Amino acid sequence: MSHNSFGHLFRVTTWGESHGPALGCVVDGCPPGIALTEAEIQQWLEKRRPGQGKFVTQRQEPDAVRILSGVFSDERTDGQVTTGTPISLMIENVDQRSRDYSEIATAFRPGHADYAYFAKYGVRDYRGGGRQSARETAARVAAGAIARKVIPGVTIRGAVVQIGPHAVAPERMDWDQTLQNPFWCPDAEMVPVWEEHLEKIRKAGSSTGAIVAVEALGVPAGWGAPVYAKLDAELAGAMMSINAAKGVEIGSGFAAAALSGEENADEMRAGNDGPTFLSNQAGGILGGISTGQPVTARVAFKPTSSILTLRRSLNEAGEEIELRTKGRHDPCVGIRAVPVVEAMAACVLADAFLRHRGQTGGGAFAPGQHRRT
Amino acid sequence: MSHNSFGHLFRVTTWGESHGPALGCVVDGCPPGIALTEAEIQQWLEKRRPGQGKFVTQRQEPDAVRILSGVFSDERTDGQVTTGTPISLMIENVDQRSRDYSEIATAFRPGHADYAYFAKYGVRDYRGGGRQSARETAARVAAGAIARKVIPGVTIRGAVVQIGPHAVAPERMDWDQTLQNPFWCPDAEMVPVWEEHLEKIRKAGSSTGAIVAVEALGVPAGWGAPVYAKLDAELAGAMMSINAAKGVEIGSGFAAAALSGEENADEMRAGNDGPTFLSNQAGGILGGISTGQPVTARVAFKPTSSILTLRRSLNEAGEEIELRTKGRHDPCVGIRAVPVVEAMAACVLADAFLRHRGQTGGGAFAPGQHRRT
Amino acid sequence: MSHNSFGHLFRVTTWGESHGPALGCVVDGCPPGIALTEAEIQQWLEKRRPGQGKFVTQRQEPDAVRILSGVFSDERTDGQVTTGTPISLMIENVDQRSRDYSEIATAFRPGHADYAYFAKYGVRDYRGGGRQSARETAARVAAGAIARKVIPGVTIRGAVVQIGPHAVAPERMDWDQTLQNPFWCPDAEMVPVWEEHLEKIRKAGSSTGAIVAVEALGVPAGWGAPVYAKLDAELAGAMMSINAAKGVEIGSGFAAAALSGEENADEMRAGNDGPTFLSNQAGGILGGISTGQPVTARVAFKPTSSILTLRRSLNEAGEEIELRTKGRHDPCVGIRAVPVVEAMAACVLADAFLRHRGQTGGGAFAPGQHRRT
Amino acid sequence: MSHNSFGHLFRVTTWGESHGPALGCVVDGCPPGIALTEAEIQQWLEKRRPGQGKFVTQRQEPDAVRILSGVFSDERTDGQVTTGTPISLMIENVDQRSRDYSEIATAFRPGHADYAYFAKYGVRDYRGGGRQSARETAARVAAGAIARKVIPGVTIRGAVVQIGPHAVAPERMDWDQTLQNPFWCPDAEMVPVWEEHLEKIRKAGSSTGAIVAVEALGVPAGWGAPVYAKLDAELAGAMMSINAAKGVEIGSGFAAAALSGEENADEMRAGNDGPTFLSNQAGGILGGISTGQPVTARVAFKPTSSILTLRRSLNEAGEEIELRTKGRHDPCVGIRAVPVVEAMAACVLADAFLRHRGQTGGGAFAPGQHRRT
Repeated sequence: MSHNSFGHLFRVTTWGESHGPALGCVVDGCPPGIALTEAEIQQWLEKRRPGQGKFVTQRQEPDAVRILSGVFSDERTDGQVTTGTPISLMIENVDQRSRDYSEIATAFRPGHADYAYFAKYGVRDYRGGGRQSARETAARVAAGAIARKVIPGVTIRGAVVQIGPHAVAPERMDWDQTLQNPFWCPDAEMVPVWEEHLEKIRKAGSSTGAIVAVEALGVPAGWGAPVYAKLDAELAGAMMSINAAKGVEIGSGFAAAALSGEENADEMRAGNDGPTFLSNQAGGILGGISTGQPVTARVAFKPTSSILTLRRSLNEAGEEIELRTKGRHDPCVGIRAVPVVEAMAACVLADAFLRHRGQTGGGAFAPGQHRRT
Repeated sequence: MSHNSFGHLFRVTTWGESHGPALGCVVDGCPPGIALTEAEIQQWLEKRRPGQGKFVTQRQEPDAVRILSGVFSDERTDGQVTTGTPISLMIENVDQRSRDYSEIATAFRPGHADYAYFAKYGVRDYRGGGRQSARETAARVAAGAIARKVIPGVTIRGAVVQIGPHAVAPERMDWDQTLQNPFWCPDAEMVPVWEEHLEKIRKAGSSTGAIVAVEALGVPAGWGAPVYAKLDAELAGAMMSINAAKGVEIGSGFAAAALSGEENADEMRAGNDGPTFLSNQAGGILGGISTGQPVTARVAFKPTSSILTLRRSLNEAGEEIELRTKGRHDPCVGIRAVPVVEAMAACVLADAFLRHRGQTGGGAFAPGQHRRT
Repeated sequence: MSHNSFGHLFRVTTWGESHGPALGCVVDGCPPGIALTEAEIQQWLEKRRPGQGKFVTQRQEPDAVRILSGVFSDERTDGQVTTGTPISLMIENVDQRSRDYSEIATAFRPGHADYAYFAKYGVRDYRGGGRQSARETAARVAAGAIARKVIPGVTIRGAVVQIGPHAVAPERMDWDQTLQNPFWCPDAEMVPVWEEHLEKIRKAGSSTGAIVAVEALGVPAGWGAPVYAKLDAELAGAMMSINAAKGVEIGSGFAAAALSGEENADEMRAGNDGPTFLSNQAGGILGGISTGQPVTARVAFKPTSSILTLRRSLNEAGEEIELRTKGRHDPCVGIRAVPVVEAMAACVLADAFLRHRGQTGGGAFAPGQHRRT
Repeated sequence: MSHNSFGHLFRVTTWGESHGPALGCVVDGCPPGIALTEAEIQQWLEKRRPGQGKFVTQRQEPDAVRILSGVFSDERTDGQVTTGTPISLMIENVDQRSRDYSEIATAFRPGHADYAYFAKYGVRDYRGGGRQSARETAARVAAGAIARKVIPGVTIRGAVVQIGPHAVAPERMDWDQTLQNPFWCPDAEMVPVWEEHLEKIRKAGSSTGAIVAVEALGVPAGWGAPVYAKLDAELAGAMMSINAAKGVEIGSGFAAAALSGEENADEMRAGNDGPTFLSNQAGGILGGISTGQPVTARVAFKPTSSILTLRRSLNEAGEEIELRTKGRHDPCVGIRAVPVVEAMAACVLADAFLRHRGQTGGGAFAPGQHRRT
């Protein structure tokens, strides 16, 4: 029940503030014998790293990850492998510019967690957002890199499907496009629209929300569990724990409210490799358990609260103030959230896989198979 | 990490299938000295109980709850009170009509969890849906009744705000209306619209989805915790664990994607009883911690999968079949979900309260208060 | 982190007081497809049942267990099997004689948990000890019966090895004897000694402590995990949670303090079925992980606090009193603890097995095997 | 259910191997506003640090701890304080002499965890014991330093009470002596006896076991909880998780087996500050809940397995070998365990305090107080 841990058999504990000496995580429960190097983790951090375009924060962090424990190599291991013991990862904070924080030290920035932290703890590290900083998500991405190696048959990919009012039409989704532009945009024609929109927002010192879609291909039937460990319940909790997330949906999600039962019930036919579903309104999960279809989810992100417009607020003394949040920031945090959403999906799935293997041995029963006695 | 438990200090474990002798739950961690009778729990079960209208399932269950442990009374306790030890609740299944289940014993009903359970476990109790039955939610409602007593200053209320394509406009929300009609509808003018819509669906043997809104009034600032125990993350996980839930949003939710930073950042002014927020896009939660505003969420429910239309599917032998799901069922499961959504909110909040009290002593720092050293 | 649950993947939650309508447990995480009937559980409860001799409490409880959920049978399952969903077990309290509890209602019996419960909760069910009653252990024995079926290759057996000052010499241990006398005594010559000793104690209205030994045969190498999930750490926690337990030791235990390193380090030789150890000071566990040797532990139980001698104490009003605890009771609770110790060992081992299978796939590497990459 | 975490509201996760770049821990759930500096933690590490005498390992590690997160200071905090967010502690391994490990790289040292780790994981970091190294306990001591600050009214102190066959008589216990000699010995007359004994063992390249006693003064009544979160059960699990621990007892422990009920039931009288107990056989815990008396426990440690005598064993290839464990080592690991035992007690008590505060508000009911309704 740690507040800063998630997962069960594959369990991740993150720590660190934006302006402390470092941040990191401990990954406990990773199976042994998995090849793992810092470079493999680093590649996913690069994907997340800020400073890659003018529409994301200009903070320049190398985000170099170090593996401090849990791996080993000798002449017999064929490279460095996990040992089954906890993997400690650390990323030093090297870009802690000695800014002047006096303006926000006692101010509650509207839409930020400043006031909530103060109300709860009576003390807070206000520098760069402290523990509420999106920098914490670097540790998630690093953990997610390990999770992916626990479930090598699963491919997890994310995309931004809406920025402000501009949504990608489902029929325009082309996953190959997501790596061709700085927005993880799956629709080439949408790229210039978003570019223009974000440029306008950036110049105005404003910000905008976004929606991120994620899907996991190759998840076999049987992962997840009733009732409170439903795969979709765990995905929902994990996604909503990401900074700025305000909504999560699985499969058809909120649109399901307007569907009829006929539309919603994914029909099945016999296929060569097990059942074939004729649609995927369920998002690959029924009764909390994976069905073998792609697992699909969408996550809504609010606009970042750091804007240049003067906003009314209070300070710690209870006085009414007006403030604007200066300095580097993201006009659209949703863009940077893509690798984080992917990482959380990877961690949830790795954990579900290990638990499924624990409780049942790990296989899936296919129609036609005999049941156990 | 039980699959059938949720919560931490206020922890609920449910058990039971639709057609076993009984179902129930164990509530562990309830504080001592709280007055609690079966009648108090029963009133919330009545609210949930099927058979209250023609648009919900006609199954007639008295759903009489028994308290089997965790309470005590003598001449000094002024009525029956909790003792701090686990409270075991049981509801007998009295309406297990001896139906013929042979038709669905080996069939996977499309949209149901039948196939997923089979794939995972290789065996399943198919009678009435077994563990996947919505009857499990009776235990949640009973646990929620106890949770409400743990946080007596908090009022939790739910409403259906959309059925099929017919959504209640935000400006039409009138919470007093929800108890005046069989749909928990907060808009009197919408009632006949839904009635007509549901009647049509019922006659067609079809079903429809819905959206449920819930809000908690009186939650003080400071409940919840970073990072993976965020109050919104726990609400999201709890709501998505309800049968047929496909989406969860907090505050402005998915609509936040289209907002600007100016619109989204709830401004603050000094009030007589602490800070006053000028809007509540955040849904009462910032950084995962409550702010003192109403906590608001919405949950999307898919149409029930039990419909009279023939649908294509498979059976356990892997053969292609067509089936319709006969018998009593809900044309709109979202209606019956209202008390369940309320109960889950109550349990999450009671748990957050106890943990907040554990880690910090339970108070909230108000602007102007001195911080601790 | 429930207070009334233990285990992780195989998780048991118990509930119930001595004088409530019933007590029971929920076993969550039991693998599917395991044959399980009430009769199989009942046989272990019979072993525990009081009223089987004049040296254990005369309370006459049939302790009939009911399975309320989690099992299923149809024509294809070859008998009733587990489904992987939570198994709820209930035992009704039928022997709640309407005693007069007025004498102890407000008194703190010395050595009992009365005062501690009062100090913590401010209210307590004093009838028959309430939640502190040894009746709670009936639920553990029932859960243990299921645990044994999860690890069919493991044999768990317990014995009383000391009562009062009379200890069985290690070289006199004969496990076959334990079922031949009412004391689980593994030494036929010790039986009359204990009999005489207990008779004297019983007549005096006094009580005596005891030591119970338990061993698990057939545990393969690899179960358990570093560091805080060590198999011996989990056994220690589980055993110390039994009523009246005051000490736990693994292998040579406290005697290890006086051993030399040469005596203590169990040497190994190659055997036909893997390594052969030349001694077992370690009690089958090294570094918290099983080695393939028998897992051995011993648990010390204090004398029951219910004695007929007048003892000085306080009542709830803070007044000094003297009281004796009348009514049926055990002169030696350690005797009845044997099946409980066995059950706890079974639950810990079943849980360790499932987690080992989850994290590693479940096998054990034997010397000579290639390591993974 | 992390394997490398313990505690619930005050939760510690340790990581690191003996010969990796560093080791450390994350302390999650520490209350906010507690003054905390590296120097305060360091003082406890110094107490544990090897290289302080010829009877403990000669490994020279500065064991300098760094706080990487979870604290903050500005002009208003009156020094550095905790913020309520996770506290990450790191200790670099600076004394990793580039030894030749080829001799033990494939050998299973008898009495060590080498074989068990290999059997479980198929791969292991054999350098210096890897994760099984007692260096892991440095992280526990660091966490314990924080735990002590969570419960400032509680004093925790440990002593060695037996080395080899030489036990300190209870009536000779003088806690003030423990800081006057390198053995934590509470009996000045025993010091030269142990000195001679250890010198003989050291010269012989052998080792010996020991027993450590610990007590916590100032624990109020009410901490701990039935049934599986009993304070004694949690202490037992925590102590048994320490390297080389083989036994744990609370209060009179194993000696309770030979006591009569009259001797064992601690009588109570009214005192000025609440109840006065006339003895403390219970070790300050009844029914798993603290009584206000000193909490007392004893832990048995086996002799270290690293000895210079040739012992028979196997290697990873399954071949029979003979080996001796060269290099620095402790002739008596029990001596160094004292600060670790203290630290584990501190962590268990801090966690119990926070949970007690969470569930009940944290107070204790004294005789004469009115109960709640």
